[in-house]
Amino acid sequence: MTADPTRTPLLLTPGPLTTHSRTRSVMLKDWGSRDPAFVDMTRQLRERLLTVVNGAPTHVAIPLQGSGTFAVEATLASLIKPDDKLLILSNGAYGERMIDIARRLNRRFLALHWPEHLPIDLQQVDKAVALDPTISHVALVHCETTSGILNPFEQIASIVLGHGRGLILDAMSSFGALPIDLSKFPITAVVASSNKCLEGVPGIGFSIVDKSAIAAAKRDNIPSLSLDLYDQWRGFENNGQWRFTPPVQVVAALVEALRLLEEEGGPAERLKRYQRNFSTLRSGMEQLGFRMFLDAAVQAPIIATFLPLDDVDLRSDDLFVALHTRGFSIYPGKLTMRDSFRIGCIGAVVPSDFEALIDACREIVSLKRGRS
Amino acid sequence: MTADPTRTPLLLTPGPLTTHSRTRSVMLKDWGSRDPAFVDMTRQLRERLLTVVNGAPTHVAIPLQGSGTFAVEATLASLIKPDDKLLILSNGAYGERMIDIARRLNRRFLALHWPEHLPIDLQQVDKAVALDPTISHVALVHCETTSGILNPFEQIASIVLGHGRGLILDAMSSFGALPIDLSKFPITAVVASSNKCLEGVPGIGFSIVDKSAIAAAKRDNIPSLSLDLYDQWRGFENNGQWRFTPPVQVVAALVEALRLLEEEGGPAERLKRYQRNFSTLRSGMEQLGFRMFLDAAVQAPIIATFLPLDDVDLRSDDLFVALHTRGFSIYPGKLTMRDSFRIGCIGAVVPSDFEALIDACREIVSLKRGRS
Repeated sequence: MTADPTRTPLLLTPGPLTTHSRTRSVMLKDWGSRDPAFVDMTRQLRERLLTVVNGAPTHVAIPLQGSGTFAVEATLASLIKPDDKLLILSNGAYGERMIDIARRLNRRFLALHWPEHLPIDLQQVDKAVALDPTISHVALVHCETTSGILNPFEQIASIVLGHGRGLILDAMSSFGALPIDLSKFPITAVVASSNKCLEGVPGIGFSIVDKSAIAAAKRDNIPSLSLDLYDQWRGFENNGQWRFTPPVQVVAALVEALRLLEEEGGPAERLKRYQRNFSTLRSGMEQLGFRMFLDAAVQAPIIATFLPLDDVDLRSDDLFVALHTRGFSIYPGKLTMRDSFRIGCIGAVVPSDFEALIDACREIVSLKRGRS
Repeated sequence: MTADPTRTPLLLTPGPLTTHSRTRSVMLKDWGSRDPAFVDMTRQLRERLLTVVNGAPTHVAIPLQGSGTFAVEATLASLIKPDDKLLILSNGAYGERMIDIARRLNRRFLALHWPEHLPIDLQQVDKAVALDPTISHVALVHCETTSGILNPFEQIASIVLGHGRGLILDAMSSFGALPIDLSKFPITAVVASSNKCLEGVPGIGFSIVDKSAIAAAKRDNIPSLSLDLYDQWRGFENNGQWRFTPPVQVVAALVEALRLLEEEGGPAERLKRYQRNFSTLRSGMEQLGFRMFLDAAVQAPIIATFLPLDDVDLRSDDLFVALHTRGFSIYPGKLTMRDSFRIGCIGAVVPSDFEALIDACREIVSLKRGRS
């Protein structure tokens, strides 16, 4: 079997992912970044992002050029002041990345760590926050793409807000699918990007920030011009324009992707589709003998980490190549502890895409089993 | 006369600008950022960018997510160490922006300023550098989009290199058209973005950095993770991949745009087209009575700043709106001293586009003259 060279490999990754053709096709146009039509598009973008997390009365949406990490760094740089202290809860690579960022920014922080296969422990968080009144903010990753683990956002938000501290949520791979309701949990900021569950193309991130928190940000405390979320927000509020040249086609694609999310029925319906994708994937892979890395109880239907087969000599790298030849792009593992591979359930993909993937995996495994 | 709603307004701006349909059409595909095809595309991007400025033996190309300002900030943050001292030469808004960046980064700097209509003065630069041996680097904007003025890059490079200091060139609106030859002037870094004379879509910037300068950069000195050009470079060198999610469609578009530049005959031929655009624009506008802000001797054929007519009550804002209705998007002025408007000569546009613009201007002016 050879690859069809005219076919885009189907991306089953945590992003960049497979997008809808409507999302891509709006990029066929040029937009002037100061033209009324684009200013209106930016307004729509900001409004629609707020709606996804029910944040309109309390929060503002601040999109930013760059990848999701740029938006996380901008949020920490702009909202954590030199006198503040950040508690970072980490059980994966993206929690560790927030630690890197806090260190670069020279912000006061401490960190609690859990192994990659365990969710953040509520009692430990409660205790750490209660014991240290100088902790001003807590930060965590909602769904750690390292493993696919879901951290208990709502319970952590209850604890942190209950102690009167701020909370910053890296919702990179959950925003648009998993429930985040700012009217129930009015946290300091939620950060995400265009190219995960919103199913846009990559190129912008955004932060949904509590109005009083962004109003209290001080330019003098922010050690970057490009990543100054306060200035970025002031720019939007002043004239509806981006301070610096925005990726106009990426913005147009995200607005179209947000329309598609609405047409699908919003985050709850999107989550149901991802759950159908995930269960098709899991049952098919388990039938082939693959085991999942995480316990089902902590697994989000966003990205699934699988362990190599016990009885077949098929390393994850080899499976990656063999699937690529067959038109499927999966992701290498990111676990620090062992060999693994990851398959994303998100994007403009449906259960039949995963059935086709399982067929390809079956063929690859059979070839290997036949040979051994 | 009403606007044709199906037509993209023709962008005659300094960017985002009018791109070639081939450049936009490659964005119809999804790319996995770790897939071999995309890794190869990134390699091509880096090689082709180097070729534009003849930098292959001495320099490396480091693309970065975000707007051009992000790339300027990353370059200063990564190459100017806390013990260094930067001399910033400023005669417009983008020179002032480098001052803002240096201040945010808490780097030692001093600045020389000239009015918006005068180029940087060589004798003053020579004297300032000679007098202060603690100046380690000099930075300037090649073509200031504020006014359209061309600064004498080669002469300044001779002076600065002659004194044994580093030079950082913000070539945002000149890269790909105006001559920059790193084999003759091996300066520290040239910074630009995807969406100016390269005629790509916006979403990435890049820095072309002297190999020994980037190798000498120290992670501990760089106060940002996202804008760390050293880490970004190490990432490319290690596995050909971007550290953080790249805007894959924007990258694909820029590679296609670089192919188009090559097909056109390279920067020298592109400059000739822009010169034809510019002279069509200038002579047409002058016939209508508009005067240019700059002396011809210092005017680059990139963006032209015009002053309002003396005998007609037509403010720049009104001209902007009237032209927009007729399908042309020009740019508001950015001069601090007086009302003006700007028209970009760059992008996938040709002299006949400017003839059409002149016709529209003639109509607008005639309507006004008829009324008064």
